[in-house]
Amino acid sequence: MITLYGYWRSSCAWRVRTALTYKNLPYLYTPVNLSPEVAEQRQPEFLRINPLGQVPVLEEKGLDGHIVRIGQSLAILEYLEERYPALPLLPENPRERALCRQVAHLIVSGIQPLQNTLVVERVHQLVPDLAPKAGAEWAKHFIDRGLAALELLLQDIPGPFAAGERVSLADVCLVPQLYNARRFHVEVQKFPRLLHAEAACLELPAFQHSHPEKQPDAPVA
Amino acid sequence: MITLYGYWRSSCAWRVRTALTYKNLPYLYTPVNLSPEVAEQRQPEFLRINPLGQVPVLEEKGLDGHIVRIGQSLAILEYLEERYPALPLLPENPRERALCRQVAHLIVSGIQPLQNTLVVERVHQLVPDLAPKAGAEWAKHFIDRGLAALELLLQDIPGPFAAGERVSLADVCLVPQLYNARRFHVEVQKFPRLLHAEAACLELPAFQHSHPEKQPDAPVA
Repeated sequence: MITLYGYWRSSCAWRVRTALTYKNLPYLYTPVNLSPEVAEQRQPEFLRINPLGQVPVLEEKGLDGHIVRIGQSLAILEYLEERYPALPLLPENPRERALCRQVAHLIVSGIQPLQNTLVVERVHQLVPDLAPKAGAEWAKHFIDRGLAALELLLQDIPGPFAAGERVSLADVCLVPQLYNARRFHVEVQKFPRLLHAEAACLELPAFQHSHPEKQPDAPVA
Repeated sequence: MITLYGYWRSSCAWRVRTALTYKNLPYLYTPVNLSPEVAEQRQPEFLRINPLGQVPVLEEKGLDGHIVRIGQSLAILEYLEERYPALPLLPENPRERALCRQVAHLIVSGIQPLQNTLVVERVHQLVPDLAPKAGAEWAKHFIDRGLAALELLLQDIPGPFAAGERVSLADVCLVPQLYNARRFHVEVQKFPRLLHAEAACLELPAFQHSHPEKQPDAPVA
């Protein structure tokens, strides 16, 4: 049985939930409360699981009987792809695989880290008089810049999905990033190619069921 | 023939140079001058190659005759691993592969993006009166935090390399990050496990030849 440590609103955990759901892999969801008042990720119990104090973390018994414990969402996604190759999220053609990974990494290392809570908090420590506006503007700036690059990169790639005809790891990373973009009031209508891919994804049960607001630790609306 | 767009001091380009050299793959090195006075990466010619305006970018003719063009260092590294499997930089065991990728991603998305030039420049725009000190402190903070987590993660993994007995993508990402750590005056002696791995790597020709100061676009000392 797979265990996933996550948090309803973590876009990185959402990526992994989507892949697990798409691949029909049942998993035990273990919420780690990242809200600033609780900050369970900074408590010793969780730091033993991931010293960086971040979700997601995936655990399962490996084929050799030893526990596999993995942090970092894309490391988890690559593991799942190799361990459970049915219902693939990477195409076979090397050029297309490379494009999927380029899109995924552009988001995972080029956008999301610059807008996560820790960085926004650091901005506020730098300019406390300008909080919370300065942090929100910081996040908006980097999301806007990254999505604009992504829109350009994908403009000549036929859809409907981010990297072509089939859903892939590119989409798994894109959909949560667009969700975050709206939280930070980025004008996402500037990115029609990305919105087109998002719309195609949101018709799939894997994206619907993995949505933050559907998670057991999400606040009741 | 492989073409690599890079810059001598870019830690992301260094990762790719190391892998190409380790795998004995000849490549044409095309420097893109990222120095603030030139900023070739923001000129239209390069933005057509990578809309995000970042190095590295790798290009080669694929097996199907079409050009493969890839941005994002880890996407390139995964491509090279699949396209040129001889002299692997990922182990075969799934648990060990996952650890290598976790280490690589921790650096590539958890540390480096928070200390790159673009982010440091943004810090200076936020607090111009405190430049350049505020940017340097920002970078140092995030490198220190990330390497401390990595040191903990690897403390029980036997060496000499980051993820075990053999050199891997984990080392390919670690060595350039330690180089950056020193540039930002991080007290790297706090991380003996990481330094042990670095020392093992720096005995290998692949790391020596790919070193920033050995590149044709590096300033003459």
